[in-house]
Formats: sequence, C-alpha cells, structure tokens
Amino acid sequence: VTSGPDGRPDEFDTIGRLFRPLAAGAREARGLLDDAAAIPSRPGQDLIVTTDAIVEGVHFLAEDPLDLVARKLLRVNLSDLAAKGADPYGYFLTVSWSPRCGWPEREAFARGLAEDQARYGVLLFGGDTTSTPGPLTCSLTALGWVPHGRGPTRSGARPGDLVLVSGAVGDGFLGLLGVRGELGALEPARVEALVRRYRLPEPRTALVRAVRDFASAAADVSDGLIADLGHIAEASGVGVDLDLRRLPLSRAAKAWLEHRADPVAALRDLAAGGDDYEIVCAAAPDQAEALQRAAEKAGIGLTVVGRIGEETGVRVWYDDEPVPVTYAGWRHA
Amino acid sequence: VTSGPDGRPDEFDTIGRLFRPLAAGAREARGLLDDAAAIPSRPGQDLIVTTDAIVEGVHFLAEDPLDLVARKLLRVNLSDLAAKGADPYGYFLTVSWSPRCGWPEREAFARGLAEDQARYGVLLFGGDTTSTPGPLTCSLTALGWVPHGRGPTRSGARPGDLVLVSGAVGDGFLGLLGVRGELGALEPARVEALVRRYRLPEPRTALVRAVRDFASAAADVSDGLIADLGHIAEASGVGVDLDLRRLPLSRAAKAWLEHRADPVAALRDLAAGGDDYEIVCAAAPDQAEALQRAAEKAGIGLTVVGRIGEETGVRVWYDDEPVPVTYAGWRHA
Repeated sequence: VTSGPDGRPDEFDTIGRLFRPLAAGAREARGLLDDAAAIPSRPGQDLIVTTDAIVEGVHFLAEDPLDLVARKLLRVNLSDLAAKGADPYGYFLTVSWSPRCGWPEREAFARGLAEDQARYGVLLFGGDTTSTPGPLTCSLTALGWVPHGRGPTRSGARPGDLVLVSGAVGDGFLGLLGVRGELGALEPARVEALVRRYRLPEPRTALVRAVRDFASAAADVSDGLIADLGHIAEASGVGVDLDLRRLPLSRAAKAWLEHRADPVAALRDLAAGGDDYEIVCAAAPDQAEALQRAAEKAGIGLTVVGRIGEETGVRVWYDDEPVPVTYAGWRHA
Repeated sequence: VTSGPDGRPDEFDTIGRLFRPLAAGAREARGLLDDAAAIPSRPGQDLIVTTDAIVEGVHFLAEDPLDLVARKLLRVNLSDLAAKGADPYGYFLTVSWSPRCGWPEREAFARGLAEDQARYGVLLFGGDTTSTPGPLTCSLTALGWVPHGRGPTRSGARPGDLVLVSGAVGDGFLGLLGVRGELGALEPARVEALVRRYRLPEPRTALVRAVRDFASAAADVSDGLIADLGHIAEASGVGVDLDLRRLPLSRAAKAWLEHRADPVAALRDLAAGGDDYEIVCAAAPDQAEALQRAAEKAGIGLTVVGRIGEETGVRVWYDDEPVPVTYAGWRHA
C-alpha cells in the first residue's frame, strides 16, 4: 500500500485494490479505469435513481465498525429502490475518508460492501474518493429498473385507499435507544437484536414486485412512519388516518411497551421514530388484498394500519381516540 | 425560513425553497417530492454517469464564495461528460452543510447552480442534503447521453494515434498559484484572470460532438495533463510521448514562463498541474484532422502535443531532449 504525503493510504491504491474488485463483472463500470460509467438503455424501462448521504457523528457513531456503516448505507438505498418497485441494478459511491480511515478501516468498508453486493445482486459502477480533515462522509447513489411509467411514487395515493406497512414498526427507534444504553429494562439478547437491526436494516427487496404491481403510492420508513406517511400525503394531495392500535410490533417492542406508563404515547413514539426501513404503501382495497397475498408468499407480513382520506394532513388515532402528535418524526438534521 | 433545534436552516426548507426551483421542468425529478428520480430509457443510447466529490479545505477554501464553489462542482462534472462525448442531461447533488452554511450561504450555492444550469442546459434530478459538524462536503453526479457504444473512453488509444489537447494548458496550475498569492511578478489583471479560471473553469461542451465522432480515447485535464495522459495510456495498454515544446499556452502562461530560470522545468510544471478542464484525446491521424476542423468551427483550438506508442508509460520531451518527470501531477488527496 502506498501512502500519500500525509501518511494516509493513496486514493489510487484504494480504488485499485479495494474498489475495483467490487466492480468486477460490471461492463458499465469499465473496470473503474475510466472517469465515467456507461449504462445501456433498456427499451420500455425507466432507471430509478436514489441517493443518500451519511456523516460520522450525525448518522452513525465514530466507534461503529466501518463494514456495518458501508452495509447500512447500501441497504438504506436498496430500501428506497424497493419502495419504488425497482429491481436493484448497481450503485455509485463517494467517500471522503477521515484521518482515522487507515488501510484496515478502508478494507473493512470494502468488505462490508462486497458482502452485501453478493447478497443483493448489485455491483459498483463508479464514484469518487477523497480525504477530509473532518468526519467520514459518504454518499451512495443506487440504480434500479422498473417498466416504463410503472412503480409507485409518493404521489399516487387516493382517498379510499388502505394504508399498509410491512414487517414491524418501531424497532429502529428502539435500536437507537439501545445504542444509547437507554433500554436497561429489556433482556440483553433483545437489546442486542434491536441494536443489530438499527445498524443493519433489512431492505424489503422481496416486496419489489408486489409493490410495483399493486401499490398506488409507497415509501420506505426512514424518517419515521408518521413523517413518511406525511410525505405521501403531501405529495398525493390527500390525508391519512393512522390507527396506532393496529401497528405491527416485534416481540421486543411489545416487551418494551409493557414497561411504559403511557402506552399510547409510547406507541406514538414508535410510529414517529425512524430507521425501520419497512415499506409503507397505499393501495385500493381490492389491490391491497392482492398485495397482502403476494407479501405472504414472500414471507413478509403486511398490515393495514390506516386509510387515505380527502382532508389533508396526518391524523393519528388509537381506535376512535385522537392522539396528539407534537413532532412528526425525524427532520433531516 | 424554519430553523432546526441547532439553529441551522431546516433541510426541508432548503430543499423546498432553494432546490425545488432547480428541478422545475424536469419530469425525472418528480418535483423533488419523491425519494427517487425516474429516467426513461432512450433506445439506442447509453447514459453516461460521472461523479465528483469536493471538500472544503481540500478542494476549495473556506473563504471561497459558495456560488462559485457550486458552479465549479457542476462544471467539472460537465467537463467529464464532454470528454466522454456525452450530451449533458441532468444531475444529482448531495450536500453536507457545515456550521457556517446559514441561509445566505445556501442561497448563494443554489444561485450559482441556477446560473450554470441555464448556461449548460441541465436540470437537478434529485439528491440528498444533511448537515455536518465538519467541513462543507458536496458530491455531484452528472448524467449525459451518447449513442449506444459510442463516445470515447480512456481505453481506446492505439499506437500511431496523435495526442491533442484543447485550449491552453497550465492556467489551472497558475490560477492555484494566484490564489496562494504566489504570482507576484505578473500584472494584477492577469493574475485575476487566472484565479477566475481556476475557480470557474469552462467545460468544453462545444467539443462534445467532435470528440464523440473522431477521438479514439479522451479524458479531461483535471489531475494534470501528464497524469491524465497516464490514465489513458494505462487504460489503453499503450504509451505516450508528449512534447512540451508544443504545449498550447495562454498569454498569461507565456508571460509567467518568461520569468522562469528553467523554462523547460516550468513547462513540465504546467503540464503536471491540474484543474485545466481542457480535453486531451487521442485520434488516428486522419481523424485528428477532422477533429481539428470541427474544433475550429466551434472556435476552440486543438493542438497536437504528442503521439501514442507501443511502449507503455508517459515519456516527456522538449523537442528531442527527454525531460525528467519526478511526479505525475496531482494524486487524489
């Protein structure tokens, strides 16, 4: 490994030894020997493009292992693609390495990407690396394909549609509490599982086809269920009624809920927290049934948690009781 | 403008008020209301994708006006597209705002983008914004179109090809010296022009068609002419002989050269410096003539500065005298 004048690993070495193998087999990447990638058009298909940026100290902690940081960055983008009904295709990566990123740290980062590339069937197409005197900063742009004009957006929800969410809601919020050591009352094994889920979410790629075929609007739950429903409502020009009593919860979340003095407020916190990477979608009632059947085949629960209405805004209920919402999930910091 | 708990402008406001207007008219962007963009395929065409990341304190100075920083970021990516023979189409942007980026700074950044979007005919398709406790960090991914399989790469140069470079070489290097106050001997107006060129390069978009039709390999001069020729040579598995005596120079560079004790070493420094954003390309001799005629029509000089050979590596000459090269331009820091 060659080092630059500042003693850090050389960027050409980083690209050549660590990133080039991640592009092996991708003609689009031109072996990372070029300064651009070439994506052949697919007649009748649209390329779906989504981007997320993460910063050490804001989106992850300085002590987080970099293989997990890299995998989460890839996974949150694959989660976005799944919510658009797009088949994962490839990605571009930019990394600004902080002073702590020596060769072992960069190797760990690349190893994490290699592992999840194989798991999700995507390849690296290109990007840029540089160094920074500040915190480690990365952005990833993921590409996927959908048939032209197909795949739900945030703006297709219509009054009368049902609102469905995959898996369980709130484990991301609890995982973050776990990272902060604020889950003392729970069994250590449960805390560990929640922290792991927070650090390494599971994008719902198995739902791509079902979401594409049956959902009228969809998003992934990254800002928090309430906030992400708010995005759908705003983009669609409609409103949402969300019933907290129907919220699908993991066993760990149910155990946590038992210790809350105000369980309805606690449920609201689970619905306001982010980082679940479930899919929330709207679908006409007959389509919702087909969607649930398809999800069941994929082994993933899909629960009706509300309904789209005419009046704009997100209204939160527990059965017939309105629940005050003072904050609508994470605002991008 | 809403501020977050840390007193900084809210990211939703930043997107809604500053970035949404930059996406107006781009159906691909879905009004930035979605978390993904959709690019319809163009049968028979390839999407060319290139990415650059920049960091305050590494690629630009903390006191640089942010409209110029944004414009340079867009322009260096358009320069990459031009070198690939790709017609500019649109771009994705990620910004991690540093604490100094209040509303006026963000407005300046967006204003710079708006100005150059109009100039170069591109629109914002999407991206992500966040905040950072560290230096301002941005990355931009630019998209362009070429007919399928067309457009030069770095890997198409063949022995016997001529090497040509557009415009003038070395002004980027001199502009950086100017920024650092190291051009004392030159007239202030000349220094100012060089600094301006360094801060606001002119991508050679007028050469897109000519490069696409006649070049066998091409790159833009960002790392430095010698280094970028080295990339072409490596990717093509060939070598390059570069004649410094043929280097096209601006009047300012010629004036600077007159004050050098060792003019050949100074010429080598101009060829090793980066940030010129000219296009360097290889072309078979008959194609090179057509390329020069097309460039002339576009009002841009294109000078033969060398030749592709069988033996790998970059050899630098002044007429028939070999010139020692101890460093091959900027390595990515």
